Amino acid sequence: MLIGVDWGTTRLRAYLVGDDGAVLESTESSAGLMSVPAGGFERVLAETVGAWRARTAAPILMSGMVGSRQGWREAPYVATPANLKALADGLMPVEAPSLGDVAIVPGVAVGIDGGAWADVMRGEEVEIFGALDTLGRTGGTFVLPGTHSKWVTVEDGAITDFRTYMTGELFGALKDHTILSKMMGKGRDEAAFAKGLDAADGLDRPGDLLTRFFSIRAEGLMGRLGEDEAGDFLSGLLIGAEVKSACAGVATAIIVGATDLGARYRRAFERFGVEPVAAPHESAAIGLTLIQRERAGI
Amino acid sequence: MLIGVDWGTTRLRAYLVGDDGAVLESTESSAGLMSVPAGGFERVLAETVGAWRARTAAPILMSGMVGSRQGWREAPYVATPANLKALADGLMPVEAPSLGDVAIVPGVAVGIDGGAWADVMRGEEVEIFGALDTLGRTGGTFVLPGTHSKWVTVEDGAITDFRTYMTGELFGALKDHTILSKMMGKGRDEAAFAKGLDAADGLDRPGDLLTRFFSIRAEGLMGRLGEDEAGDFLSGLLIGAEVKSACAGVATAIIVGATDLGARYRRAFERFGVEPVAAPHESAAIGLTLIQRERAGI
Repeated sequence: MLIGVDWGTTRLRAYLVGDDGAVLESTESSAGLMSVPAGGFERVLAETVGAWRARTAAPILMSGMVGSRQGWREAPYVATPANLKALADGLMPVEAPSLGDVAIVPGVAVGIDGGAWADVMRGEEVEIFGALDTLGRTGGTFVLPGTHSKWVTVEDGAITDFRTYMTGELFGALKDHTILSKMMGKGRDEAAFAKGLDAADGLDRPGDLLTRFFSIRAEGLMGRLGEDEAGDFLSGLLIGAEVKSACAGVATAIIVGATDLGARYRRAFERFGVEPVAAPHESAAIGLTLIQRERAGI
Repeated sequence: MLIGVDWGTTRLRAYLVGDDGAVLESTESSAGLMSVPAGGFERVLAETVGAWRARTAAPILMSGMVGSRQGWREAPYVATPANLKALADGLMPVEAPSLGDVAIVPGVAVGIDGGAWADVMRGEEVEIFGALDTLGRTGGTFVLPGTHSKWVTVEDGAITDFRTYMTGELFGALKDHTILSKMMGKGRDEAAFAKGLDAADGLDRPGDLLTRFFSIRAEGLMGRLGEDEAGDFLSGLLIGAEVKSACAGVATAIIVGATDLGARYRRAFERFGVEPVAAPHESAAIGLTLIQRERAGI
């Protein structure tokens, strides 16, 4: 048995996991890091998993931003290449007298000792190892769509490289805090999303994106793009640019997280000739189980 | 004589211009469109130029967003190619009994009848014709740095094409409304700006920009980029991406507007091997004088 916790900035998910990795019970709340008062981590965790703790002394493993500098206790990043053993070796115990054995899974970093690229993840590494195991793979290209989309390369059971695209967050900033906010209606228009993908394909240099944004405004003024289309067009433009950038030389990519956004990424994959593979839903619980087994030497 | 007015969203500039195009007096205020109450345009203009009107019956020509749908009266865009005659032919008179002859210069649009690209300008066209005349040119590539940077191609005395880069506005949205806001110190660091230019040069595909943004955050977490550097690095990354995109195949470009931002564009030009030419400061007043002469058939 294991109590697994995926504790992010805005959400808290917890799982009671059987010895075979199956999720027996789960709970989710908005008790993310941002809502936890100073010194309140143990109390919030006890409220979340206390009922399970009464039934089992199983260890509690946590992943996500809970291990960041702003979290409960900082669990220093493990450098790439990072495999399950490296994550288990890097587990950071936390003091939680009322809850017993509690530890935080470290994040993974690229470029921590210098080098051309710098990137970090916390939480996604666990989902990736879960998906890898369920799919019976030892490698591949993984994408976790979201506010900060992660594209992760896995080789021989280790995370060797990754890139975070600020696509979702940039979409929000453009939609709410630029001149484009004047034309962001509430429509849901898949044809406009497809037009945005086409527009992304038509770009050539990196800076072209900066002028394509303004062109959306001009098309709106001219009546060439409606208020109900502009938001989905922008979404297609950004996701298209991301997928085209991340998938250069990639034939197949595994989408982790079966969200609405995942459906849009599958459409972008189709547009740019990449074969999508779907990863199972509860990858985090499985990943935490694998780290616990590695830790226990099972 | 001419009373010239450059009336934008946030600023109002007015010039009393001699017959030779020289600025005799000028005034500037924050009475931009956004601060003008409904029905208040004539009153605000009278407050601004009333003292000059008492001395001369010269026509008042206005350019900028005052001619937009949200302005005093909409002056429909002139399509490219747009020369001085097209702007003079498109002048839109406004009713201002207390002020006499008042007209608005139309903006210029690309793609108003369809086509691959759509873009619009209001006000910049006047500055460009002013700069063109002062420099004794009939063509060239012009850049007007700003919240919305304009890159404009002029051939045989006509604006034939242009692109607006949302560089400045995107910088503000990223700085204030994304995860990068956590590391935007107040430093002014020209070395960090230069590093940003280098980073822009290192990008390959359009979507690469979306991941380079997040990498700034990761470099901050790792101590590879300081809080005092991050803002200027981001500025260099964005301006570098813009200049590299806009200057493909361009050897010389004319910078209109001698601002602090203009100095940064000159540094980007140097980095990407483009020769900068400086345009004079009062290009708008000269441009308005040229349109008035064209209108009067002088």
